[in-house]
Amino acid sequence: MALTWPQGIRSAGVASGIKSDGALDVGLLVVEEPAAWAGTFTKNGAAAAPVEWSRSLLGSPLRAIVVNSGNANACTGAAGLDAVVATVAAVADRLRCSEREVAVASTGPIGVRLPAGKIAAALPDAVGQLSDAPGAMADSIMTTDTRRKISTATVGGCSIVGVAKGAAMLAPNMATMLAFIATDAPLDALALQPALNVAVKASFDRISVDACESTNDSVFLVSSGRGPQVDEAGFNAALTAVCWDLAEQMVRDAEGGSRLVRIEITGAQDEERAVAFGRSVAASALWRAALHGADPNWGRVLAALGSVDRKLDLSQMRLDIAGHVVFEHGEPAGSLSEAAVAMQADEFTVTCTVGPTDVSVEVLTTDLSPDYVTLNAGGMS
Amino acid sequence: MALTWPQGIRSAGVASGIKSDGALDVGLLVVEEPAAWAGTFTKNGAAAAPVEWSRSLLGSPLRAIVVNSGNANACTGAAGLDAVVATVAAVADRLRCSEREVAVASTGPIGVRLPAGKIAAALPDAVGQLSDAPGAMADSIMTTDTRRKISTATVGGCSIVGVAKGAAMLAPNMATMLAFIATDAPLDALALQPALNVAVKASFDRISVDACESTNDSVFLVSSGRGPQVDEAGFNAALTAVCWDLAEQMVRDAEGGSRLVRIEITGAQDEERAVAFGRSVAASALWRAALHGADPNWGRVLAALGSVDRKLDLSQMRLDIAGHVVFEHGEPAGSLSEAAVAMQADEFTVTCTVGPTDVSVEVLTTDLSPDYVTLNAGGMS
Repeated sequence: MALTWPQGIRSAGVASGIKSDGALDVGLLVVEEPAAWAGTFTKNGAAAAPVEWSRSLLGSPLRAIVVNSGNANACTGAAGLDAVVATVAAVADRLRCSEREVAVASTGPIGVRLPAGKIAAALPDAVGQLSDAPGAMADSIMTTDTRRKISTATVGGCSIVGVAKGAAMLAPNMATMLAFIATDAPLDALALQPALNVAVKASFDRISVDACESTNDSVFLVSSGRGPQVDEAGFNAALTAVCWDLAEQMVRDAEGGSRLVRIEITGAQDEERAVAFGRSVAASALWRAALHGADPNWGRVLAALGSVDRKLDLSQMRLDIAGHVVFEHGEPAGSLSEAAVAMQADEFTVTCTVGPTDVSVEVLTTDLSPDYVTLNAGGMS
Repeated sequence: MALTWPQGIRSAGVASGIKSDGALDVGLLVVEEPAAWAGTFTKNGAAAAPVEWSRSLLGSPLRAIVVNSGNANACTGAAGLDAVVATVAAVADRLRCSEREVAVASTGPIGVRLPAGKIAAALPDAVGQLSDAPGAMADSIMTTDTRRKISTATVGGCSIVGVAKGAAMLAPNMATMLAFIATDAPLDALALQPALNVAVKASFDRISVDACESTNDSVFLVSSGRGPQVDEAGFNAALTAVCWDLAEQMVRDAEGGSRLVRIEITGAQDEERAVAFGRSVAASALWRAALHGADPNWGRVLAALGSVDRKLDLSQMRLDIAGHVVFEHGEPAGSLSEAAVAMQADEFTVTCTVGPTDVSVEVLTTDLSPDYVTLNAGGMS
């Protein structure tokens, strides 16, 4: 059975010419009726114009989201907001709805003026191609992504379907990413927003590729309300699962990354501290370089943990890399050569047992490769 | 005139065999008489045994500092402290002083047991070679450093001479580094410690190579007291100049770095905020990759600033890269191609004008190169 959006949701993806290679670069998601929705957005002080616009819509119903790739429309001044307004007006005109029912998202290079006319010109095609298949929209939001990212879950008789993009500028505080999630679960904004907050905190906030926060991060959750009543706890769990799956797909597709590494922190005093530990290890350029070389240089893990907790108790600490203990009872332990062999896998877990509690969280990262640098060393001029 | 230590200070550097290639790896600095000193040390929770030992000596006089490279003696458990005690005992025995008058520092790989016997065996040579020339000691502390780092200043009739090492794992909170600074200015520990605190905060705390904090950072300032009285303000300024010069030498020699980049933050509300801005830009892997490619991708600078200030006022902001304006009045400005050409220099300044005040600080960084990754991707197993 082909993957489809929940009932009442349709999307399209078209090529407007923003991307010079002719790839899909404009996505449109439409709800049949004005719909309840929730959103989380970058906290960055240089947030892009589309973020400012979409955030301002929270609390009122939504009919459509229009998204472009190939241009972030960030740090573009008054022209940036003009481009948003022009785009929104064009969509509202096509769909015969209010401009305030149209959200916007953009992703791509910062600081380049967005040619809003190209989006408007592509809208007839986009509207004409609206369907219940999410694939074209998922493709239209890709930048340096090499694979489309889609995830789905069912809860009761309802479904949750999300598409996302994100391959670098990925840091906690949602990472540089866009995600568009739709459901038919009949929940209002007052139920959707806390569900999304919790899901984002437990997923997109727990991945780190380069610890660089972005100007355009946006996660949308929109409901057509067409499905049967669902249990809210079950919905929340399913939503978190979709977000986690999308987050994991982002890390797997990270720029220059060759392996997915799960940083598991166990035994911290509370979840907040555990996440801080995990992020610090996941953000260490030195440890991520070691991951690239399959080098079990665990001292870099301890240094990253010690930068979070100034009073780290090494005697309580145990480190396992890819299933091999390398540090225990305050001292080196086990076999580095065995760990090194296991680190050549495409995917493995680094378990940091930092204390005696049963608190456990996982933060995802990837290795830091020469390719990451090369990919990010040019292109603006 | 050859560079010499202040009167009353001598040093040596010898090869003990800790480094397998036979390079100098043990340094010894000796003061004629028990001397006043100050120290600043890593705040990392996984601080190495030598750090714990030396920090415990603060407040009592010092006769000698023994340092080894090629092994950090960090995260080595009880054996690590045993190695420190054995080393200190051997030095005290040679110099006929108290063990509590001997400080220790180590730098190199974490988690490898330190062969203290090799240091003890090399001590007769080291003591025999003590002289007023700092070069051999400066060489003996090098790890991935490619150049020795020495700086000197005079104040009144006194001198300040420092040697240092540091090439990666360089982050604020002193960066991964060792520095040994000596003076003959007749100041007691109560004067030396605040002077050193201020100097470190304005120098080693303002460099960032990979934002990785280390387990072994130590800065020592020791006075033979043999010089004439000096003006304390003048002394403080000269000490800060020496520390800044050593910090700059570290960034110039950073692993894999090909250019020195000064991140100048002007106009912030206060110095603390300015330093936070500077560190964030200096730590951005994406911006540092762009620096490597001489790519004026200034959006990454704004994103880094915006991660510090959630309410950044872009209309107040101006960015200049290597003397070329690229962003002003909330909008892209100037010529990217001119900036790109200027970025090919070995050294340039990125000026971020974030507001109207005259607060100005500089944070030093370097580009992120594929070589950095390659250099740090192997070696433990």
